[in-house]
Amino acid sequence: MHIKPKVKEEAIHLSDLAWKEFPPTLSSGGIRWKMLHASPEMGAWTAIFDCPAGSSFNPHFHVGPGEYLLTKGRMDVRGGSEHGGDTVLAPAYGYESANARHDQTQFPVDSEFYMTFLGPLAFIDPDGTPIAVVTWDEAQRAYAG
Amino acid sequence: MHIKPKVKEEAIHLSDLAWKEFPPTLSSGGIRWKMLHASPEMGAWTAIFDCPAGSSFNPHFHVGPGEYLLTKGRMDVRGGSEHGGDTVLAPAYGYESANARHDQTQFPVDSEFYMTFLGPLAFIDPDGTPIAVVTWDEAQRAYAG
Amino acid sequence: MHIKPKVKEEAIHLSDLAWKEFPPTLSSGGIRWKMLHASPEMGAWTAIFDCPAGSSFNPHFHVGPGEYLLTKGRMDVRGGSEHGGDTVLAPAYGYESANARHDQTQFPVDSEFYMTFLGPLAFIDPDGTPIAVVTWDEAQRAYAG
Amino acid sequence: MHIKPKVKEEAIHLSDLAWKEFPPTLSSGGIRWKMLHASPEMGAWTAIFDCPAGSSFNPHFHVGPGEYLLTKGRMDVRGGSEHGGDTVLAPAYGYESANARHDQTQFPVDSEFYMTFLGPLAFIDPDGTPIAVVTWDEAQRAYAG
Repeated sequence: MHIKPKVKEEAIHLSDLAWKEFPPTLSSGGIRWKMLHASPEMGAWTAIFDCPAGSSFNPHFHVGPGEYLLTKGRMDVRGGSEHGGDTVLAPAYGYESANARHDQTQFPVDSEFYMTFLGPLAFIDPDGTPIAVVTWDEAQRAYAG
Repeated sequence: MHIKPKVKEEAIHLSDLAWKEFPPTLSSGGIRWKMLHASPEMGAWTAIFDCPAGSSFNPHFHVGPGEYLLTKGRMDVRGGSEHGGDTVLAPAYGYESANARHDQTQFPVDSEFYMTFLGPLAFIDPDGTPIAVVTWDEAQRAYAG
Repeated sequence: MHIKPKVKEEAIHLSDLAWKEFPPTLSSGGIRWKMLHASPEMGAWTAIFDCPAGSSFNPHFHVGPGEYLLTKGRMDVRGGSEHGGDTVLAPAYGYESANARHDQTQFPVDSEFYMTFLGPLAFIDPDGTPIAVVTWDEAQRAYAG
Repeated sequence: MHIKPKVKEEAIHLSDLAWKEFPPTLSSGGIRWKMLHASPEMGAWTAIFDCPAGSSFNPHFHVGPGEYLLTKGRMDVRGGSEHGGDTVLAPAYGYESANARHDQTQFPVDSEFYMTFLGPLAFIDPDGTPIAVVTWDEAQRAYAG
């Protein structure tokens, strides 16, 4: 049996990575991001997002669990607390579970959050039809591209 | 902080579960299955499949990694060894990685395999468009239904 | 950002792997095993165990979840059903949860099981003190050695 | 088959959680922490740490992978860059792999970091003998206690 090596550690200063536009087909209002890490074996990935006041993500499912640290601003998740979801003000932590559906994720003020994802984000049409499955691999290629 | 309990252990005799038809929109040739376990937190699931001679699964992606134990028969994975994939004869073990694309999975003789999945199977059109995302939750509902 | 490749698929016939003695410091009665897979990124591993009548594993914790398919014989887990645990007869499936403590795992008849582990097995003294942490890496080295 | 529900989402403002002393048997220099989340099924957990100038963690293994966001200060990991490890200045991201051994983790200036852990931290004696295995469950009980 071939002995497999340990995975290499990584460390990076955020200022060494460029902010890039998050695909406007999947978001609106000028969201930018830095892809921080891809885990090809687990299918996990990690990123930080810069979300100007008024920006939002299009409807999507979290295929696996995700955890975030909101470092700046305000995020209205799953419609925000006014519509049965959560509204968080920085600094805040949140856990989104496998199969969590996010019809609306909105940023009413300039905001920033760091998030780890196990598995892809499945962006959907309003009727739930998948339109794009953003895996660790799609994410790294979108950021590099 | 609320103290969360340990998840409950499970044990089941396979004969206590019924063989059910695997959705014919996702397979052909009369594949039957038993859903053995769902892990809602990780988005994982486990099943055993009974695959008659000549049966096959429709094209799909493994969104996360999957591992199988072929307990009976023969499986041609990713086209089989004649087309660059793997051909295994029972008893055999296999690892399918996150993002593995299976255009063809065929069973030329009566076969059976047990498989653990982290994340869903994304069934696709020949051009790669997702047509159904079979998560732990879809799987348990399909089996129970 | 460096684009990471997909992990390679694997497929192996069980007859191509040798049965080896499972460490007698961690078991008794002549248990043999075949290490089937290591997942260095997740810290997961997969093996199949051949357990003669009267054999047993020493007390241990499952640090992460584990799932098994008992393909032959009988396994008394967590003391067996007579002592509040589970007794399973092949063919059977079981799920052992993260932090499951196994003071006794016994095989009253010749048995065989396949198991996937997320995380290590932590073998313990009767008072719970850890004596050995069998990770994916320890496991692959023990099998190769 | 019992249909299992989706895991519940969580959201919490960090100011609603108290800073508590991290066990001085496992660290020195007054490290405080907030336990943010436990994932009992995967055996994962998430916390934020406040590390005064001169504080450090005792030697430990990361049993599974861990990812951090250093939000303030400086962290010398695996001895720091002077000794073959990494030295990071906030804001920074890092990935510690399964089986990463941290003989020294030091904070020369007031620092803060957020970290997600898959699996426990195994604190060790200088010779590698495990002395404490801090799982998701030990962590939540230590914080609540």
